[in-house]
Amino acid sequence: MPHVDFWYDFASPYSYPAAARIADEAAHRGVSVTWRPFLLGPIFNRKGLPTSPLKTDRVKGAYAWRDLGRICARYGLPFAEPPGFPQNSLLAARVALVLDETARPDFTVAVYRAQFGEGKTISEVEVIAGVLAALGHDAALIDRTRDDAIKLALRHQTEHAEALEVFGAPFFITGGGEPFWGHDRMEDALDWATKKG
Amino acid sequence: MPHVDFWYDFASPYSYPAAARIADEAAHRGVSVTWRPFLLGPIFNRKGLPTSPLKTDRVKGAYAWRDLGRICARYGLPFAEPPGFPQNSLLAARVALVLDETARPDFTVAVYRAQFGEGKTISEVEVIAGVLAALGHDAALIDRTRDDAIKLALRHQTEHAEALEVFGAPFFITGGGEPFWGHDRMEDALDWATKKG
Repeated sequence: MPHVDFWYDFASPYSYPAAARIADEAAHRGVSVTWRPFLLGPIFNRKGLPTSPLKTDRVKGAYAWRDLGRICARYGLPFAEPPGFPQNSLLAARVALVLDETARPDFTVAVYRAQFGEGKTISEVEVIAGVLAALGHDAALIDRTRDDAIKLALRHQTEHAEALEVFGAPFFITGGGEPFWGHDRMEDALDWATKKG
Repeated sequence: MPHVDFWYDFASPYSYPAAARIADEAAHRGVSVTWRPFLLGPIFNRKGLPTSPLKTDRVKGAYAWRDLGRICARYGLPFAEPPGFPQNSLLAARVALVLDETARPDFTVAVYRAQFGEGKTISEVEVIAGVLAALGHDAALIDRTRDDAIKLALRHQTEHAEALEVFGAPFFITGGGEPFWGHDRMEDALDWATKKG
């Protein structure tokens, strides 16, 4: 079966429409998807970049919100500029790794929607607990984000992303190793996987 | 008539497929286009950015060539990674402003093709002279790039771009003032112009 790895950081604005849309677009093409949360911050930092380019360039950042608003309107996704950017995505990423792979997609989409659709702050435990509860999970599983195994799993995901030269999010890598960066390239990545591997 | 301003720097890789494709896509939709060469370098510099992000982030830069190669393949455009990036686009931009608006599009497309399709260095007078000759222009008009009026016209174009918050290239602004950045957004900009102005 054609395959795509979907790499995302929970602070990444353009990962929101990607997360909301990839399951349908992939199913439609018969492509399986592995959802891979990671942290972009450490990757930026190891390159000497202080933070997201959307933060360092004010004009580019303002444009990105306008652009993301247009994209959300096109796909019928709610959009609200969040209170802070980039938000701290550590808690959400660890919870995503506590959940098993079958529960990860719905949780991921719901966290993005809370942040970019409802203007919530995803570093707050209550926000993540609310997302988990709405999906029928026991919010107590947040406690497991303190486990060394979970912390290590996220660190490994991030190191793995960096080794694959993932430099932004969303990022898609096909089964054959072809890299695609950005929500704009999601359909290209899925098509490539079906045709060239 | 719906209108779009097409802002481009001759050093910008993604402006190559945009320049090669915009005339047909605009005509198809009944949109008029004004071709507006400017210089991104001074805009980056005034923000404290030393150069293009594709240059400062080696991994992102390598990806961009791969991505541009895929785009060129899709649209049947020749592609060859140029000897240097970013190239000095001053001469090409000044010549584009020496030419009148009707001659500017073909010259622009040919310069991009020389650089990103044939791997030539567009800061070399012989390369620009060759492009002009192939289009039936007198290469002697290169001498006019030394006129103060041309130098000033390019400076004004760049200041105008900066005032409009053009932060990258290609960049499209519809008659109604809606901004779109990147080759990925070209069709969106043209569609927007026809529907919302």
